[in-house]
Amino acid sequence: MRIRKKPWADEEFNTNKRWISAPEKNKGNWKSLFGNFNPIHIEIGCGKGRFITNMSNINKNVNYIAVERQKMVLASALKKSRENETEDNLKFIMADVKNLSDFFNKGEIDRIYINFCDPWPNKNKWAKRRLTHKNFLNLYAGLFDDKGEIFLKTDNRILFEFSLNEFEAHPLYKMRNICLDLHNSSFEQSNVMTEYEVKFTQKKMPIFRLEAIYNKEGVFYN
Amino acid sequence: MRIRKKPWADEEFNTNKRWISAPEKNKGNWKSLFGNFNPIHIEIGCGKGRFITNMSNINKNVNYIAVERQKMVLASALKKSRENETEDNLKFIMADVKNLSDFFNKGEIDRIYINFCDPWPNKNKWAKRRLTHKNFLNLYAGLFDDKGEIFLKTDNRILFEFSLNEFEAHPLYKMRNICLDLHNSSFEQSNVMTEYEVKFTQKKMPIFRLEAIYNKEGVFYN
Repeated sequence: MRIRKKPWADEEFNTNKRWISAPEKNKGNWKSLFGNFNPIHIEIGCGKGRFITNMSNINKNVNYIAVERQKMVLASALKKSRENETEDNLKFIMADVKNLSDFFNKGEIDRIYINFCDPWPNKNKWAKRRLTHKNFLNLYAGLFDDKGEIFLKTDNRILFEFSLNEFEAHPLYKMRNICLDLHNSSFEQSNVMTEYEVKFTQKKMPIFRLEAIYNKEGVFYN
Repeated sequence: MRIRKKPWADEEFNTNKRWISAPEKNKGNWKSLFGNFNPIHIEIGCGKGRFITNMSNINKNVNYIAVERQKMVLASALKKSRENETEDNLKFIMADVKNLSDFFNKGEIDRIYINFCDPWPNKNKWAKRRLTHKNFLNLYAGLFDDKGEIFLKTDNRILFEFSLNEFEAHPLYKMRNICLDLHNSSFEQSNVMTEYEVKFTQKKMPIFRLEAIYNKEGVFYN
């Protein structure tokens, strides 16, 4: 989909302090940029920014970085991010997930949110593009320190089934809180919805969710 | 549900050689009873027997034991089992799952099928009765040798979600082939349907399925 140029986009990029135009320069220095040692959570594909802006308002002791590769979508997210009350714990970068290790050192990321990513429905052809393909799980592992977390939400049954199997087959991840219908579960009260999620939920479509814990040694039981 | 007495039931129990009236006497001796060293697979709650009778016809090199606690349901299953062609690889016992270790020694069972078991939908009240509650997973582990397998099918989303989390949380089980819509997946060709499954599938309801591998040491990667 070609996204129409937004006339106000340039001003948004020029004036919103949450926009980090050259993220590679912060590689290894994100904690300095935020000015504290709070954990850093990123969202891969932030869309129009509803989720991460709300999260940054709810959790002031977490630093958030939204990753989005489409410039005009990012412009909308930046506009939305002006609802971020403190301005200090939310940043945006334009990047493709494939290149995340150009922007973050190992250990700089504590948690990754993947919300309603492209399901790439033709598995045989496109499985490697799915953000929970084992190649990506390995890439994420390279951003975590000894431990890390991935929180996944999707409306797509096929992607979710694929993700369950990919995480289960990976020796360094362990799932928890697997949920096949988020809005009819006990998690819902603390759930912050994305734009897609609002839309799908209005249509009564079930939302799938899981958490996957990364452990460098693959040790999950004591 | 009170199940009506079937007038032909007594004759079925008296004449069908697949019926084992005193299974506790075979504890430790099931391989002798079958007369070979083929693996033994049991189905917990065989219902009217469609699944296990068909399986026993397809897989002549596997010995099957159907477990059912309701006598009149078992009578129907026995009647159905007359379609079992060889008569040698299929037996039926009347038992409650809680008491399985009264009938089988450790290591006598290689695989357990759990098909469309009671979902006990009120989790807070009845979770312990669900056949994938951790207490049952521990009980099954006691029937396996160093390795074992559990194959689960259900139409019930809540039970399946619960089961995913129970297996995932158990250090000695690892899932594979998790499937959120069996009849729209690549497994279907080799899938033998139960009576419930035929009914639910006609109604276009998705069938959930998983396999869980038991390993005594909890070691799943080499």
